[in-house]
Amino acid sequence: MDIRSMAQNSRHAARALAVLGTKEKNQILEAMAVALESRKEEVFKANKIDVAAGKANGLSEALVDRLIINEARMDGMKEGLRTMISLSDPVGEIESGWKLENGIHASRIRVPIGVVGMIYESRPNVTVDASGLALKSGNSIILRGGKEAIETNKALANILGEAGVAAGMPGGAVQLISDTNRDLVQELITMDDLVDVIIPRGGQGLKKAIVAKASVPVIITGAGLCHIYVDENADLDMAVPIIKNAKIQRPGVCNAIETLLVHKAVDPHWIESLVKELEDQGVDVIGCEKIKAIAPQVTLATDEDWSTEYLALKISIRMVDDIDMAMDHIELYGTRHSESILTENIQAAEKFLNGVDASAVYVNASTRFTDGSVFGFGGEIGISTQKLHARGPMGLQALTTTKYVLRGQGQIRV
Amino acid sequence: MDIRSMAQNSRHAARALAVLGTKEKNQILEAMAVALESRKEEVFKANKIDVAAGKANGLSEALVDRLIINEARMDGMKEGLRTMISLSDPVGEIESGWKLENGIHASRIRVPIGVVGMIYESRPNVTVDASGLALKSGNSIILRGGKEAIETNKALANILGEAGVAAGMPGGAVQLISDTNRDLVQELITMDDLVDVIIPRGGQGLKKAIVAKASVPVIITGAGLCHIYVDENADLDMAVPIIKNAKIQRPGVCNAIETLLVHKAVDPHWIESLVKELEDQGVDVIGCEKIKAIAPQVTLATDEDWSTEYLALKISIRMVDDIDMAMDHIELYGTRHSESILTENIQAAEKFLNGVDASAVYVNASTRFTDGSVFGFGGEIGISTQKLHARGPMGLQALTTTKYVLRGQGQIRV
Repeated sequence: MDIRSMAQNSRHAARALAVLGTKEKNQILEAMAVALESRKEEVFKANKIDVAAGKANGLSEALVDRLIINEARMDGMKEGLRTMISLSDPVGEIESGWKLENGIHASRIRVPIGVVGMIYESRPNVTVDASGLALKSGNSIILRGGKEAIETNKALANILGEAGVAAGMPGGAVQLISDTNRDLVQELITMDDLVDVIIPRGGQGLKKAIVAKASVPVIITGAGLCHIYVDENADLDMAVPIIKNAKIQRPGVCNAIETLLVHKAVDPHWIESLVKELEDQGVDVIGCEKIKAIAPQVTLATDEDWSTEYLALKISIRMVDDIDMAMDHIELYGTRHSESILTENIQAAEKFLNGVDASAVYVNASTRFTDGSVFGFGGEIGISTQKLHARGPMGLQALTTTKYVLRGQGQIRV
Repeated sequence: MDIRSMAQNSRHAARALAVLGTKEKNQILEAMAVALESRKEEVFKANKIDVAAGKANGLSEALVDRLIINEARMDGMKEGLRTMISLSDPVGEIESGWKLENGIHASRIRVPIGVVGMIYESRPNVTVDASGLALKSGNSIILRGGKEAIETNKALANILGEAGVAAGMPGGAVQLISDTNRDLVQELITMDDLVDVIIPRGGQGLKKAIVAKASVPVIITGAGLCHIYVDENADLDMAVPIIKNAKIQRPGVCNAIETLLVHKAVDPHWIESLVKELEDQGVDVIGCEKIKAIAPQVTLATDEDWSTEYLALKISIRMVDDIDMAMDHIELYGTRHSESILTENIQAAEKFLNGVDASAVYVNASTRFTDGSVFGFGGEIGISTQKLHARGPMGLQALTTTKYVLRGQGQIRV
């Protein structure tokens, strides 16, 4: 099918989905979960083809690992769908209601966005997660996964689509672009008459290319160059586990930190021992000249270090003169994702919380908490690092918009 | 000054504006209003140059009229600023607050977007309105007005900037691009590292060009191809004044209707007399074949009529078989702005309100109420016809985003 016809089907499905009840949507989600169990062998079989091709094409071990669907990951996807059943349906929520001077009753109600285009790279679980979130929030979705996972994605989308339709889902609600031709992405992101939003998930290169070329609005997610700033009044005993957690617990995710900023008045012995502790845990430590003077074994930082999202066991450390210099550094190099200050001083804390421009700002805690599940949103379709529409972890509500409903008795404007 | 330096100044100013108090912002707005009064002769003088140039260049009378700044319009701009003083400041509002399982106190607070790029055509009052709304919501603004109003805009922006800075506004908070070279627009809309949002106001051509080329997120405003659907169960006596109001009261605005859809069971005599009443008021009536069979004097509609925003005393009328056909027509030709059903039947009303995808849906009222002031938002920076971020009339809140603030006591993620 050509992509314009797909998008037209998607828009058609979106009209039906917008008025579908919560009970019906939950039944569809349950049918999808059941089908993923009963037809899992199809998925495993398709996945073996992708994994074999990935190995043959020399994909790194980490990338091949991302591709693999085993029993546990299959269970994870099913559980994800059942979690969505338990989440409250945002569609139809009344945000506010009031009466105009002329007697018209006005209200602002939450409605689905419409047609969501999801462009992602290797992980096939996104196929299921994104479809479930879109469905629960009343949107239709057009999926465009990475070519490495194409067979797995086709099997998953087939199962979701067939099980969904059998349970009452409008046809066209969940569609996968099964042709890996790149021109189709270009077509998808410029069909602004049919597609309401594009959500890219993947590397910065993918996102930059999409933003530059899209005429459909784009929500940018997951750029995470995060910092912790250790203030002169920090509780240094509290600081060590927070820093280690934010860097080491899961270094490959966007809410892990890349750079540590340390006030110049902080005890150099503490810095020296922190660097050692990090190194003992396998972290490659980069430092500014002043940090290197304290811990000479660290690699000297270049300007590029401050602007690199390592996503690995690697950290850059810079000494700063004061909180203003720390905030300037974050303004210059940060991606406005998650930023934390460690301090016992309430004025420094408030200054940082108010003055730092990011989706999540912390005092005395690890940045690792910026996450839809941790925040209590159930799941997340991504973590927005832009300011428009949605900012921070995006749950079901981020996949909705609002409309004004006005009930009159013959009013005209004078 | 080159445009990148302007944008850097703007971002610098935005950091200071974000933490400026409401009282301080109101004092700046008052100082601006006072300066507009005391320095109005500068504006009139500059405006005379623009008006003379417009006439010399053969601008239409309507366009020249839009350019003119007289005492009354000057007063209007001043009053606008003072209305903004009276509006509540959205910045710092706490949208929600809760405690995570681990004891972290989380809240979601409203913050300014940052740097707003405003691209508009002839009306110079936008210079003042947009600057005031941006300032009150804590944003800096880069203004790019039409070249027809360049001298007027320069005078206004000068006065606002000088009076603002003297009253404590950060330099760079209000800036006008005074060079009318088109390449500068292209530069502005692709500086996604410095500019947070672009709001174009003007014709569809301007907006389409900006959406196609921008990498900065864009909010589309004011595309208004609106409909009224007269259901078979409409109160026809109530319908006439509503239709006349929606078409005639101010035909050049986006919330006026362009097309009337009439159920086939509606009394043909009523249709005949409605067409006459509209024609008596100077409205050019276009109709489908079935309408022409009832009122033979109307011009036969072409497919282009259904998709044309006349913005004039002109209306197209189509007979439909039922409410579904009316809703399909609106889905196909509407711009998702404002749509109204006239009916006494509650099921038809609910079906229309739920099923029509638009920023504002009405029952038994004129579409002309879709307006920030009428809705009670004070002013408006435009009426968004897109679904992301803001939909419908955009008041101060639409110029803000949120951030999550998390206050911990040493928490790490396990």
